[in-house]
Amino acid sequence: MPELFQLLTVARANARLAEYLAPLGRVEHVDLHYALDRVTAADLRAPADLPAFARSTMDGFAVHAADTYGASEGLPAFLAIAGEVPMGRAAGLEVPIGAAARIHTGGMLPAGADAVVMIEQTQALDEHAIEVLRPVALGENVIPIGDDVRAGELLFARGHRLRPQDLGGLAGVGITSVPVAILPRVAILATGDEIVPADQELAPGQVRDINSYTIAAQTRRAGGEPLLHGIAPDDADTLLRMAAAALAQADMLIISAGSSVSTRDITANVIDALGQPGVLVHGVAMHPGKPTILALAGGKPVFGLPGNPVSSMVAFDLFVQPALLRMLGVRGMENTANERPFSSDVASAATIRARLARNVASHAGSEDFVPVRLAERDGELWAEPVFGKSNLIFTLAHADGMLGVPLDKAGLYAGDEVMVRLF
Amino acid sequence: MPELFQLLTVARANARLAEYLAPLGRVEHVDLHYALDRVTAADLRAPADLPAFARSTMDGFAVHAADTYGASEGLPAFLAIAGEVPMGRAAGLEVPIGAAARIHTGGMLPAGADAVVMIEQTQALDEHAIEVLRPVALGENVIPIGDDVRAGELLFARGHRLRPQDLGGLAGVGITSVPVAILPRVAILATGDEIVPADQELAPGQVRDINSYTIAAQTRRAGGEPLLHGIAPDDADTLLRMAAAALAQADMLIISAGSSVSTRDITANVIDALGQPGVLVHGVAMHPGKPTILALAGGKPVFGLPGNPVSSMVAFDLFVQPALLRMLGVRGMENTANERPFSSDVASAATIRARLARNVASHAGSEDFVPVRLAERDGELWAEPVFGKSNLIFTLAHADGMLGVPLDKAGLYAGDEVMVRLF
Repeated sequence: MPELFQLLTVARANARLAEYLAPLGRVEHVDLHYALDRVTAADLRAPADLPAFARSTMDGFAVHAADTYGASEGLPAFLAIAGEVPMGRAAGLEVPIGAAARIHTGGMLPAGADAVVMIEQTQALDEHAIEVLRPVALGENVIPIGDDVRAGELLFARGHRLRPQDLGGLAGVGITSVPVAILPRVAILATGDEIVPADQELAPGQVRDINSYTIAAQTRRAGGEPLLHGIAPDDADTLLRMAAAALAQADMLIISAGSSVSTRDITANVIDALGQPGVLVHGVAMHPGKPTILALAGGKPVFGLPGNPVSSMVAFDLFVQPALLRMLGVRGMENTANERPFSSDVASAATIRARLARNVASHAGSEDFVPVRLAERDGELWAEPVFGKSNLIFTLAHADGMLGVPLDKAGLYAGDEVMVRLF
Repeated sequence: MPELFQLLTVARANARLAEYLAPLGRVEHVDLHYALDRVTAADLRAPADLPAFARSTMDGFAVHAADTYGASEGLPAFLAIAGEVPMGRAAGLEVPIGAAARIHTGGMLPAGADAVVMIEQTQALDEHAIEVLRPVALGENVIPIGDDVRAGELLFARGHRLRPQDLGGLAGVGITSVPVAILPRVAILATGDEIVPADQELAPGQVRDINSYTIAAQTRRAGGEPLLHGIAPDDADTLLRMAAAALAQADMLIISAGSSVSTRDITANVIDALGQPGVLVHGVAMHPGKPTILALAGGKPVFGLPGNPVSSMVAFDLFVQPALLRMLGVRGMENTANERPFSSDVASAATIRARLARNVASHAGSEDFVPVRLAERDGELWAEPVFGKSNLIFTLAHADGMLGVPLDKAGLYAGDEVMVRLF
């Protein structure tokens, strides 16, 4: 297929589109409880020290460390009890030299004290005095002010996808309303005279719309908001009208193209007519997914994804997902050469190392993507190719992930170590 | 610490609780577009063959394969054009022997035809006839009826967490309303006289509620619905009243316990008073997270998680997450010994292999969990331990995952291969 040699590689196709993409820059403030998986739209800094006061990490006695130096079971240090530190309030007392104050884990270190001795290393003499059986160092069993974070410290840079622990950190410093990037609106338009809504009974020759569902779900996973625009017929005028209307309301348009050459040509022409600069990439050196179209119209990315469900999912993963991350302003996507950085900021980018269970042949001059099922055997993770045509959706339903065969390889061998993208 | 030898291991603690846990069995039907990440509550079978009719995978001509046998460029087969198959409708014509019908990718194979010849392998003579330049085999370039799935075939067993491709498969067979397990309701109750809501200004001695946020977010990730019940004071009667009210409205209760011994004892007593059989596990041979409480009251699991934010997150991951998966009926959790099977059914269970960047010491007789940051260097993934006290939430905010040091090891060495749980 000499045509392949004129196609762009996946990386170059992505780079060509990425040149035009920038964070949308639209910000909303959400309650911290609803900020999970959202992407920060500003650098977040600590408004105050955390903790704001020195806290005990143990149940015991707040003391002057110097009072305990040299203490042992044979020669304990004798300390008078100066009182008890209440939880959740100011210590309310001062510990004089030669004295100690009862304190609980999390309690505020009282004035005068500079360390805490664990209760297990003391001996109660009576209600008014204890013996300390071991010395404590200055600051021992105490979290000093600002030990978790200091006022002004950068907590999360702009472009960070918030995880459970990040919400915890923001709660700790009292940031309960978070500036996050608004979810990019992704218009999805299926096409094809033979395609009918999935809830409709089929007449002969009709098939149900699969790709609107997979594309919408992939959009949600990547951090976008899917807007479903139904199914357009294979008619250039109607398709252009529906595509323009969908794009006007969204930040991105995905057209699930027909699979015949004539309908693919209609899709390409319609996309080119949506606005400048139009089609940037038409065809990529990959399998499946070769007929993928990447375009830009009026500053918004437009994708023509192949109609075969497997090709559509692979092309989304390789092209639409990184575009969405760029529009969200996710860190690590500034470099246009990055498709999928390894970073916890990139949701669903989980990649796992496995051993290939059998030989996989590949198309030369084309990057091949092969669905695999993962299985653990003898303490090792094996990737078993799931062979199936790219027009069969259950090929993917039986798979746990996808492995890529690089452009310059004619295949991979059983036993090779491979990286599998989970999906 | 001889106490450790009386503590249960993580696996045994989990097994003790798991004996009592079963799928909740409450089912709701959701629209397919909202079924992403939900867990199927019934075996789903294909109501009909997919595809329901034989389809062409190419643009070309539907033919009788036998008519093309022996065809070559030198001696092409001559075929009369019997018509064109419309997209999305019954073929509406029959292909006689010696004839061909124009067909597009995805078109319905017309009666009589048993193969499709690609347009590239034909030569148009005029509008009424073609020459075929290469023979096609019976069924070539045709997806037969039921090639994707057969009527009655099991698509997804009960207990499967639905991914984008699974929604696509269900759309393909017309299942647009899906029976899924209702999200288990998880009541979350923070405790501690020193704890105040995160949006409140701090008075001396007070700290903000971090754990309600992390636990709620972890609950969502695991597939549960968090119900926030605020903050209870360190008072047994009030705590019992609030805990009982929270549990009554939920399927599970999580109490974020105080961190001092006295408040932990209050929590344990209150949990024991909530119902039979009460506390099953009090203390686990792990670090952090040792004071974890696992209990059952009136058939519902109740957890007392340690107050330190890091300990709380680790204990949730090890104990609450598998309990939620069992209540959801997720496949692979039937065996009570399973904590976290490797399976795409188990969300957030992504585990990744990395090389340890430096030595990690560990507490003997205790399973240790160490937050790590992942970094790629020289094409390898390295796990860098993030050292920090378990009461510092930003220890976790700076980490990408957690590695476990097994019970029988005193530590791990730089260069060791380790498995990291991403979180």
